[in-house]
Amino acid sequence: MTPVAVVGASGFSGMELCRLVAGAPELELVAAIADRWRGERLGDRVEAEGPAADLVVRPQAELEGAVDAAAIVALATPAEVSIELAPRLLARGKRVLDLSGGFRLEDPAAYARWYGLEHAAPSLLREARYALPELPRTAGPSAPGIGEARLGANPGCYATAAILATAPLLAEGALEPRVFIDGKSGVTGAGRKLAEPYLFTEIDANVSPYRVGVHQHCPEIELALGRACGRPVAVTFVPHLLPIARGLLTTVFGAAIGEPDVAAILGRAYAGSPIVRVVAPEQVSIARVARTARAAVGGRADPERRSLVAICAIDNLMKGAASQALQNLVAMAAPAAPMEA
Amino acid sequence: MTPVAVVGASGFSGMELCRLVAGAPELELVAAIADRWRGERLGDRVEAEGPAADLVVRPQAELEGAVDAAAIVALATPAEVSIELAPRLLARGKRVLDLSGGFRLEDPAAYARWYGLEHAAPSLLREARYALPELPRTAGPSAPGIGEARLGANPGCYATAAILATAPLLAEGALEPRVFIDGKSGVTGAGRKLAEPYLFTEIDANVSPYRVGVHQHCPEIELALGRACGRPVAVTFVPHLLPIARGLLTTVFGAAIGEPDVAAILGRAYAGSPIVRVVAPEQVSIARVARTARAAVGGRADPERRSLVAICAIDNLMKGAASQALQNLVAMAAPAAPMEA
Amino acid sequence: MTPVAVVGASGFSGMELCRLVAGAPELELVAAIADRWRGERLGDRVEAEGPAADLVVRPQAELEGAVDAAAIVALATPAEVSIELAPRLLARGKRVLDLSGGFRLEDPAAYARWYGLEHAAPSLLREARYALPELPRTAGPSAPGIGEARLGANPGCYATAAILATAPLLAEGALEPRVFIDGKSGVTGAGRKLAEPYLFTEIDANVSPYRVGVHQHCPEIELALGRACGRPVAVTFVPHLLPIARGLLTTVFGAAIGEPDVAAILGRAYAGSPIVRVVAPEQVSIARVARTARAAVGGRADPERRSLVAICAIDNLMKGAASQALQNLVAMAAPAAPMEA
Amino acid sequence: MTPVAVVGASGFSGMELCRLVAGAPELELVAAIADRWRGERLGDRVEAEGPAADLVVRPQAELEGAVDAAAIVALATPAEVSIELAPRLLARGKRVLDLSGGFRLEDPAAYARWYGLEHAAPSLLREARYALPELPRTAGPSAPGIGEARLGANPGCYATAAILATAPLLAEGALEPRVFIDGKSGVTGAGRKLAEPYLFTEIDANVSPYRVGVHQHCPEIELALGRACGRPVAVTFVPHLLPIARGLLTTVFGAAIGEPDVAAILGRAYAGSPIVRVVAPEQVSIARVARTARAAVGGRADPERRSLVAICAIDNLMKGAASQALQNLVAMAAPAAPMEA
Repeated sequence: MTPVAVVGASGFSGMELCRLVAGAPELELVAAIADRWRGERLGDRVEAEGPAADLVVRPQAELEGAVDAAAIVALATPAEVSIELAPRLLARGKRVLDLSGGFRLEDPAAYARWYGLEHAAPSLLREARYALPELPRTAGPSAPGIGEARLGANPGCYATAAILATAPLLAEGALEPRVFIDGKSGVTGAGRKLAEPYLFTEIDANVSPYRVGVHQHCPEIELALGRACGRPVAVTFVPHLLPIARGLLTTVFGAAIGEPDVAAILGRAYAGSPIVRVVAPEQVSIARVARTARAAVGGRADPERRSLVAICAIDNLMKGAASQALQNLVAMAAPAAPMEA
Repeated sequence: MTPVAVVGASGFSGMELCRLVAGAPELELVAAIADRWRGERLGDRVEAEGPAADLVVRPQAELEGAVDAAAIVALATPAEVSIELAPRLLARGKRVLDLSGGFRLEDPAAYARWYGLEHAAPSLLREARYALPELPRTAGPSAPGIGEARLGANPGCYATAAILATAPLLAEGALEPRVFIDGKSGVTGAGRKLAEPYLFTEIDANVSPYRVGVHQHCPEIELALGRACGRPVAVTFVPHLLPIARGLLTTVFGAAIGEPDVAAILGRAYAGSPIVRVVAPEQVSIARVARTARAAVGGRADPERRSLVAICAIDNLMKGAASQALQNLVAMAAPAAPMEA
Repeated sequence: MTPVAVVGASGFSGMELCRLVAGAPELELVAAIADRWRGERLGDRVEAEGPAADLVVRPQAELEGAVDAAAIVALATPAEVSIELAPRLLARGKRVLDLSGGFRLEDPAAYARWYGLEHAAPSLLREARYALPELPRTAGPSAPGIGEARLGANPGCYATAAILATAPLLAEGALEPRVFIDGKSGVTGAGRKLAEPYLFTEIDANVSPYRVGVHQHCPEIELALGRACGRPVAVTFVPHLLPIARGLLTTVFGAAIGEPDVAAILGRAYAGSPIVRVVAPEQVSIARVARTARAAVGGRADPERRSLVAICAIDNLMKGAASQALQNLVAMAAPAAPMEA
Repeated sequence: MTPVAVVGASGFSGMELCRLVAGAPELELVAAIADRWRGERLGDRVEAEGPAADLVVRPQAELEGAVDAAAIVALATPAEVSIELAPRLLARGKRVLDLSGGFRLEDPAAYARWYGLEHAAPSLLREARYALPELPRTAGPSAPGIGEARLGANPGCYATAAILATAPLLAEGALEPRVFIDGKSGVTGAGRKLAEPYLFTEIDANVSPYRVGVHQHCPEIELALGRACGRPVAVTFVPHLLPIARGLLTTVFGAAIGEPDVAAILGRAYAGSPIVRVVAPEQVSIARVARTARAAVGGRADPERRSLVAICAIDNLMKGAASQALQNLVAMAAPAAPMEA
């Protein structure tokens, strides 16, 4: 069993990740770091089973000591924290899987524009392996496989759903490389923020867009889709906040090339995947995937309007964060596969 | 005061319409027809004030007698019922405002395709005046003004929001005539249907698309937008069901022509409107308009991606049905304006 | 028209009160005070109609000048603020209606125990008129009628519902003077607090009790019920937070005396009231009263168990705060009735 | 592994039970019966793992054949169905655990009164073992232990929460034997009923009582509490429907005897229980137990009012149905303990 530490254990994604790592036969949770719960027993906060329940949560100030026994450190922290911690951990010989956006883009300048921060570790951006397990072609061709990577970048929640729905259609030449993505997410997507927009009275019975055209997952989606089809892709992305706690659904629109059989293309892409289920577009729903590691995708072309639609639903904290991180951690823990695509 | 009757008073839209007509100084509610509440006092079911509260609800079997005193009959009934009732009422000299989709399209063949019904009164389709008050150019140039119309067609809820957001951009040549519309609606949009998809356990904590690409508001939006800009418009439309009772939000995507100032175009279109408020796109929300007659619209272009987004929120039962019907009823009741646009 | 000022206009109750005062023919809203919205046009924040919409919201630092034109000042402020402001306003010759708990109890010592504050104006506690319009016997026999009062105390939300359900049963000797009250409230009852328990993620899909046995409405209910029946009443009260924005329902349990006809007693108490509707207990619901000024009450005795149940639902911001305040403001504005009970 | 069949697999409780049995090391799910899903693969409907996922759901008409391989049959069916099926299954040598109310009461006459049905198998009522695992004293002294029982009666959801909160207090003489119970349940408690009260539009933003004083769990609670303390207990019970899918909370009120330490009594009763956690009453919440097998209980006495409150939260489909059934199935499957209390 590969020893794993989780930093940011008290966040929504971090909690799920602790639970999943504790239950994975290939991994052993050896440390949980979270200032908010410092000194508490992990099992009093997280539905972790087995010995992980008895871990005492450590504060971030004790990071180096806390992760000493870990081979891989998962960072469920904000991007600016991850950017600061990852180099320190790599320098101590740890491998790192980052769940934030801190290492998902290639160009340091994109961080100034989309994240509003000067990237403090730009040399790591080309090394980091973007890892969406079902779509290895979205990962960046020069990067190593996630199995050998020192630093893995776990995709964003919106990006995961958008890419799962869109990449196969672009890769097969069924869709013009200009797509329009409507994202809809439950409020845990924002993390555990004490801010007025996240009060019950603001969210209940309401739906509203935010960061229209300027959300930081836009360049991540463009980058991954561009890798998938080998040419630049323009993404116009509008996220919306839903009055639900968990779950995320993306609806992707674009101009079709020819008269593609969307269901067949998606079916080929995910044949044999235990995670991604291809269904009729009307069967894609948040309820179908909430609290699971699964994704549901479906779509349909409209030959008369020469357009197509592809829809994907995931649980934002699972396939959109923690269960995808688990997939990546297990891949990092496995003996290197000789010929990973 | 012009005497008005409401058929379908017990539906969600019908209830709102009874309440609004009862409170309008220009109108007098003289009859409410609904099998479900036959024989009950209207005021025991609807927040109607004044003498309307004491009306006794009549069954549909007594339609002709019940509407005898009315000059205008508002039909808050399903399309197939409206198509049957409207000719009978017109034959008795009544004017009719239909809230269903029964008279919104021009081509009888479109009813077979999108509504799954053989239209029983095709000759009325060219006479019916489609009436979205803020956008008279979407009404069909050959039709009379709603003030003189014998038969008015009140727009659909999704269509109202989609057209308010999109028509000015098309009319000003800022948007390519192929648009992608993501609709999101509360469950009252489906009416008071006793069906499993509308149970609390199915809707709560869920979001899902339905009728992907085949929703009956698609041709209505295409027709109205085509009239607004004078050329055919292709609309790809995906509606989604939200876990809220009321409210509707549409997010419209498309290719921009040039570098349009979306806010300025929308601002010009709705300058002086007491109903439509132009705000920043992030300020468009269902909470802002729920239970009101208002619409909120906003948008933004992305010059780098040569795309734009326009968003509109309304209350599906108010501006999406009853309060828009009230606007049209008041216009029908007014002495004919000599030079209506 | 009597000129009224509202302090605390940006709170949930204050917003409703501004809207109601602006629409009341007997009253004129002449000032709205709220630091949060200082300098903004009231109509941009509140659905106020008429000239009130054009009022500019004033900060609390300008209180004295702002209320200059008002005859009555309504305080929609926290108890500690009301206790500080009321004496200042009375000293300037204003009449005051306080919506907080600051003047609802008689005994200054009760404030230390239940509110955790030293009451700074204890001499006003005996003068203040507790005013639940439908139940004048709960008001304190030595106090003047609300019509003549300088200082009125508007009942609390839980207290209003609990007293409406219980007082008639105690007054008619149908119920032992030891009652058990289960309160259930939407989250607006807590005001607009930015605190973690009020985040969507904490409230959604959850129900929990709070302040079990120590809520500050307990002594208020005991005092009013004691006045209603002329002897001490012991109230055990547990409030619960519901995953809804608005509305409140109290379920009252106790030992029956004899075999009372609960419906008949409640019916007599509220005969002719336009506000309180007596219905079967299963017909009492939050949906029935939400966003209205009404209360619904119902109950039933169980002769075999010698017990009874009485249930009341109100909108916590309306009959539980603002619409009840409107009733009291109108009474204060009316020429003194010569023989008010 | 003991082979188990589940009848009523498509109901909310039946689905959970299939999932739990499939995952229990002591049990093997050998059949799932549900007309609604006849012929479907169980794993396509239920999150069952392992070979159970490949079971084909059988219709009820094939009951006898379908359960042939089972040693124990769990009935997740309505009471009237369970009453009909249990004798047939017992006659074929099966042991039965019934999740309905069909065998929870002792007196056949009580079924006419509370369930509105003539009990068709009255002779089984004395044999059936009522089994709330944490409180064996509530089971009926003459009945065999659940480990030896041919027929087990799984407690109702409200009853489970009410009894867990109340029985220890009665058994220790801390509470007068007349209690008042306010129940609050999510809508899955009603099962998967297609009826207007369960539509989203009726439940959302609403709370209302139902079956006030006449709910069928009342006599079940009285019977179990009477057994726990050895004398008759009068229960006045009002259930309420909450706008949430899952979870249930009961608030119990009564007159205290002496000045009991409620927390200490509850703590003693559940010391060592992995299921029931004793916490401060304000910490009892639905969120704490939703989707788990756990119960949370807490309470507090009010010496001044000589009263006490005890509160319990459970997941209505888990500890209120399926996970409690799992506890009982495992006990039935175990080799008989020689001296079960």
